[in-house]
Amino acid sequence: MGRWQPNARERLAEAALELYGERGYEQTTVAEIAKRAGLTERTFFRHYADKREVLFGGAGELEDLFVRAVTGASADAAPIEAVAAGLDAVSEVFADRRAFARARHAVITANAELKERELIKLASLSTALAGTLRGRGVPEPAASLAAEAGVAVFRVGFERWLAAPGDRDLTGLVREALTEFRAVAAGG
Amino acid sequence: MGRWQPNARERLAEAALELYGERGYEQTTVAEIAKRAGLTERTFFRHYADKREVLFGGAGELEDLFVRAVTGASADAAPIEAVAAGLDAVSEVFADRRAFARARHAVITANAELKERELIKLASLSTALAGTLRGRGVPEPAASLAAEAGVAVFRVGFERWLAAPGDRDLTGLVREALTEFRAVAAGG
Repeated sequence: MGRWQPNARERLAEAALELYGERGYEQTTVAEIAKRAGLTERTFFRHYADKREVLFGGAGELEDLFVRAVTGASADAAPIEAVAAGLDAVSEVFADRRAFARARHAVITANAELKERELIKLASLSTALAGTLRGRGVPEPAASLAAEAGVAVFRVGFERWLAAPGDRDLTGLVREALTEFRAVAAGG
Repeated sequence: MGRWQPNARERLAEAALELYGERGYEQTTVAEIAKRAGLTERTFFRHYADKREVLFGGAGELEDLFVRAVTGASADAAPIEAVAAGLDAVSEVFADRRAFARARHAVITANAELKERELIKLASLSTALAGTLRGRGVPEPAASLAAEAGVAVFRVGFERWLAAPGDRDLTGLVREALTEFRAVAAGG
């Protein structure tokens, strides 16, 4: 067993994203990531299954957080209001992570395989949300449609946040996207 | 040059789906597809680049049709109404193709690589629709949100159609999904 390394997980993720940005994702090895972080390969593999997991390791937590917030919304909340509670919950997580999110986004959009992976994760999130809404008594197709709406709003708000000047926070931009979405659906 | 083969494209697609259903997509070869259709491999490759294109060859036409209908919607139509015109246009194409669509759907959902490909095609459709809406003067993020709404409604309506008893038509189910979607967005 290796010694405990303070912030090893974060250091490895930052080192990986630096290298993916400098050399490309394909050209970067786990050994190089560990070296850049000042850690061993063994430590890398204690935190991530492979170099792709550095980019997608947070997707499961994000899904859990979204689902928990939708489940915890008040019993009389409309489906779109329960989804809004989930959007607020996941937006908060990114408050101080924009540099990381931007670097990650740049790596993913440059690689077809990673883009596919990102789409799969979003589709999985939508499926999980639809199931959660059905668990709240929302019938189909409303459950699937509200879930798709939530994922679409998050994606659009998130991309605007990545592109926005430094003083906009994700929560505000996602809320704006939801408001805009509801206006579009109403025929605005 | 081979002789002209009546309905060769359709015969190849039907033979391919039969074989994918019987043996699995991975286990089926182009030679077997051609043989089942009573045609040559050379004829197969005049119509499809590979065995995957049999499943996705229609995606480009579908996107063109959707985009043309959105472009052609009346100038004062709201974004969601222009998207509705596109949904009607693409729904019509499938009127007499449910058996094919069901077989295709079963093959795709059984194969992770094909599912990813389907998600990529839907993401590409959404991007094309957003661009078309911007061309109609719709600002962002409304254009992207209306495009995402259109793709979500189509997907949900399409899956309900695949699962529905024989007398429901796709146009009606997609319209219902759009109505439901608008009700969900309004907080219903």
